[in-house]
Amino acid sequence: MNIQDKPNALVPQSVTCGPLPGSKKIYHRPEGRPDIAVPLREIALDPSANEPPVRVYDASGPYTDLEARIDLTQGLARIREPWLNRRQGLETYAGRMVRPEDNGFVGPDRLVPPCPANRSPRKGRDGARVTQYEFARAGIITEEMIFVAARENLGRETMLEEAEARLADGESFGASIPAFVTPEFVRDEIARGRAIIPANINHPELEPMIIGRNFLVKVNANIGNSAVTSSVAEEVEKMVWALRWGADTVMDLSTGRNIHNIRDWIIRNSPAPIGTVPIYQALEKVDGDPVKLTFEIFRDTLIEQAEQGVDYFTIHAGVRLAHVPLTARRTTGIVSRGGSIMARWCLAHHKESFLYERFDEICDIMRAYDVSFSLGDGLRPGSIADANDRAQFAELETLGELTKIAWAKGCQVMIEGPGHVPMHKIKINMEKQLKECDEAPFYTLGPLTTDIAPGYDHITSGIGAAMIGWFGCAMLCYVTPKEHLGLPDRDDVKTGVITYRIAAHAGDLAKGHPAAQIRDDAVSRARFDFRWQDQFNLGLDPDTARLFHDETLPKEAHKTAHFCSMCGPQFCSMKITQDLREEVLAIAEREKGMAEKSAEFLEKGGKLYL
Amino acid sequence: MNIQDKPNALVPQSVTCGPLPGSKKIYHRPEGRPDIAVPLREIALDPSANEPPVRVYDASGPYTDLEARIDLTQGLARIREPWLNRRQGLETYAGRMVRPEDNGFVGPDRLVPPCPANRSPRKGRDGARVTQYEFARAGIITEEMIFVAARENLGRETMLEEAEARLADGESFGASIPAFVTPEFVRDEIARGRAIIPANINHPELEPMIIGRNFLVKVNANIGNSAVTSSVAEEVEKMVWALRWGADTVMDLSTGRNIHNIRDWIIRNSPAPIGTVPIYQALEKVDGDPVKLTFEIFRDTLIEQAEQGVDYFTIHAGVRLAHVPLTARRTTGIVSRGGSIMARWCLAHHKESFLYERFDEICDIMRAYDVSFSLGDGLRPGSIADANDRAQFAELETLGELTKIAWAKGCQVMIEGPGHVPMHKIKINMEKQLKECDEAPFYTLGPLTTDIAPGYDHITSGIGAAMIGWFGCAMLCYVTPKEHLGLPDRDDVKTGVITYRIAAHAGDLAKGHPAAQIRDDAVSRARFDFRWQDQFNLGLDPDTARLFHDETLPKEAHKTAHFCSMCGPQFCSMKITQDLREEVLAIAEREKGMAEKSAEFLEKGGKLYL
Repeated sequence: MNIQDKPNALVPQSVTCGPLPGSKKIYHRPEGRPDIAVPLREIALDPSANEPPVRVYDASGPYTDLEARIDLTQGLARIREPWLNRRQGLETYAGRMVRPEDNGFVGPDRLVPPCPANRSPRKGRDGARVTQYEFARAGIITEEMIFVAARENLGRETMLEEAEARLADGESFGASIPAFVTPEFVRDEIARGRAIIPANINHPELEPMIIGRNFLVKVNANIGNSAVTSSVAEEVEKMVWALRWGADTVMDLSTGRNIHNIRDWIIRNSPAPIGTVPIYQALEKVDGDPVKLTFEIFRDTLIEQAEQGVDYFTIHAGVRLAHVPLTARRTTGIVSRGGSIMARWCLAHHKESFLYERFDEICDIMRAYDVSFSLGDGLRPGSIADANDRAQFAELETLGELTKIAWAKGCQVMIEGPGHVPMHKIKINMEKQLKECDEAPFYTLGPLTTDIAPGYDHITSGIGAAMIGWFGCAMLCYVTPKEHLGLPDRDDVKTGVITYRIAAHAGDLAKGHPAAQIRDDAVSRARFDFRWQDQFNLGLDPDTARLFHDETLPKEAHKTAHFCSMCGPQFCSMKITQDLREEVLAIAEREKGMAEKSAEFLEKGGKLYL
Repeated sequence: MNIQDKPNALVPQSVTCGPLPGSKKIYHRPEGRPDIAVPLREIALDPSANEPPVRVYDASGPYTDLEARIDLTQGLARIREPWLNRRQGLETYAGRMVRPEDNGFVGPDRLVPPCPANRSPRKGRDGARVTQYEFARAGIITEEMIFVAARENLGRETMLEEAEARLADGESFGASIPAFVTPEFVRDEIARGRAIIPANINHPELEPMIIGRNFLVKVNANIGNSAVTSSVAEEVEKMVWALRWGADTVMDLSTGRNIHNIRDWIIRNSPAPIGTVPIYQALEKVDGDPVKLTFEIFRDTLIEQAEQGVDYFTIHAGVRLAHVPLTARRTTGIVSRGGSIMARWCLAHHKESFLYERFDEICDIMRAYDVSFSLGDGLRPGSIADANDRAQFAELETLGELTKIAWAKGCQVMIEGPGHVPMHKIKINMEKQLKECDEAPFYTLGPLTTDIAPGYDHITSGIGAAMIGWFGCAMLCYVTPKEHLGLPDRDDVKTGVITYRIAAHAGDLAKGHPAAQIRDDAVSRARFDFRWQDQFNLGLDPDTARLFHDETLPKEAHKTAHFCSMCGPQFCSMKITQDLREEVLAIAEREKGMAEKSAEFLEKGGKLYL
């Protein structure tokens, strides 16, 4: 079937491309490895600034590279292919046949065609090294590790003293953030289970990234059609759009028809790790009745998705039969879809969860493709009232148990967390997770710090996300303004991602990450110098900043004006201070040490009254 | 001059009125005081909920009361008039004549007429008790204290046990929040300087509110025209609009023409305390040249505004000559307008600030009208880079010194704070403020926790505001999405206020305020029961919540649907759990203590593996 024959709505035709204003894509090549090209975004500044361009982390993929040729039917360039080709432990095989139930038994007239970029899958041979965890434990540094090490440094290579000062100025609550990230540091963190590189061997298009407490805080964006609405073109665009604004990974939470083929299009065109919740698709295969689920159907779904190249799976193996009654008197019961599905199964059969009982078999599949575990928090609180209760913590303890099993099996693991938690109960979540799960990376949804603001839950949760990112959470799953109310559209995805980039960055700053404050300082200098264009371009969303400025002062001349509309020219404190600055500096120079003397005077009680 | 003769744009014709969806205004009358009517908002729930209506704090004034007759030319009802009439220490006098410079020498064709509701001003007699602080110190409970005590309880009168459990569950960092607020508690907190009731004796229209660490966290919204744009009608509407969405006080930061008369219209129609920064108007009177400022002009402006009824003044008396050189090497210098004006004056004259030197005279004026001090932080950091530096803290120490002088003079005092502060440096601000200023209420702008998101600074600062509110900050000054970029419009004001209501409420929850979680729990129960209308109406912004829901599922029938568009009917975890609930409860009942047994089993190491 030719994809040109299909109606437009079913097939993605194009996506948002091109750099952000003032930015260009550059590639950093680690010393001695010309075959590894690590993307960064460089923001040029006005010549008057007399400052080098600012380099920032860039998760947006080739879509923002003017040189890249984007063809969704071909998929992205397979940059990991040469690396994977060299690995002895991998083999290519025919793979599982796609079955009608994989696409929800959709009729031929509504079938989304598979992405033509598909290839035969690889899997790991028994006993061979496949996962990043296995390589790391064996003392081997992979190309993925070299890639992420360079990526985390944002192109920094010198200025050790400054980096150390930044670290000393932060409060990381016992994290071990280095001044510079080396491949060996990455390897060691992965070997200790403190970080993961979600990188399925069937996702060669991936630009590797790392999730761990001692690295930059990451952000996940959820996309996915639902039984109620949305199309494949929309979903691929949502993925590209989420990455454009700074998502580091994307979860495809699609349900309903065509999900196998939609996933194809997403993965073949995604430079970022893709996560899924396989139980959703397994449920579709049994007509939506949780009671009919079997391990065999679940297992088949894992293999189906692993062959496609999904990088991490949320698996709710911590929802045990004995946990279910702990939720009986909750205000909001079980709010995780996966959790409620498994609870229903356990109760209906009055049996222990098959995810828990056959966890070792699940591990074997995950290992064979290097799909990372995201151990799901099926009993996370759905309201402030249920935060930190026995059900939540009992599950977390089980997740700790499962973490060790997964590691023993050679798998990479992260742990999902709440949910809805008031501010004073957030830290205990982080501490308990670190303890129970031996510092495996924590990946939380929010948490929302209050329940009273439907329509604004990106903000209620952005507060909690910033705090838990500071405390040590490695990745923050975004929440959009539509949470609890509807499906996020394009604007909601952007708002959610930017809110969470703020939270992640606020966390990095507070931890004292040595690269974090460079961008803040560049914005502040631009602000103080009235370099408006630089201020816009250095921000997370240059388009909105420019638009807001132009609403009050639209003229181009105002972009160089030494005042803004807030105060007008007479009242501009920055202008007054700038006018003062020469004078103040001169005084400080002339009356050698006057600043110090002033301080001394004041400290010695230079008070007029009292 | 008849106001009907003026062009429409200059005079406010009407403002947004009517209750929020599902809500009605009620008045609580404290026992034995039928003359005191404390407004509350009551949100009705669907009969199926079988729950009483939820009462929430209501700062919106008579505008949301269907019974109230609103006539902007007449001003609001003067509810404090009988209370003030009974106070022996007050006298009515002719007051200062309005001068052309008060309205920025505006020509007659562009002059906004004064509000016809104006009356002759009152002032306190020498030696008599005038301020809430003086009454409190004398052991006298005023009507204002009775009013705020009832207001803070949100109509709660019983359920002591629950209130105490809430308190015990929170973390208040040494605050002394009571289970119920009594007038005597209010009096005591004011007498100790730990709380203020900003209530100028010339603002009889005021519905009193209290600002202090042991009360609900409050929110201020800034409005004000600027030299560049906006009109009086817009400003009055912005004030009403900000209160509608939950602002507790409003600062009028107008500059330029007509500011005296605009202020008239605002105060006569404001049920909330109005704050100003008098140095702005003083500067207008000397053609915008800080060097020409004199104490006499400043003093005249204080009296002018005190007679109009401004409830609190920001006064930057902590910017001393010796502090200015401390800012010389900052990234963003001085970013407070008031601070930069005073710094310029000090340097130009090479003299100590007249605000500092003649602070006792300022106190005498403040006391005579019971205008509260908001001691301005003229040296607050304007960037993460400048946070918690010597300049900032030197000023804070001076503010502590001035606090004690103001108290000795009988004045009410709060202290302004930063600004831009990364998360790990927020707590030290709160701790230092409590120490230096003997627990006088703290009133902070944000703080912004990162500088990289122009266009989203309501969020960067909402994070910091929630945290400092939790740590003990009494009032949070909002930041809108337009911060650093332009003048906020109506939508920005609403977004800013709601973001800050979230921050304030998140702070109340974390402190364990006994009334806070009632609303969260009501939302959560509505959510779990699929009472969509109740969920919308109980939220901070029912209109937006409903709109977001309707974007995906517009039909009226979907408002009673037992699922939402996020997951669709099959995947709804809440629905699955609800279906399970009976079963789970039955099991828990039948197998007496099964929940406990499960927990025990798990705790004793009921593990399958390991």
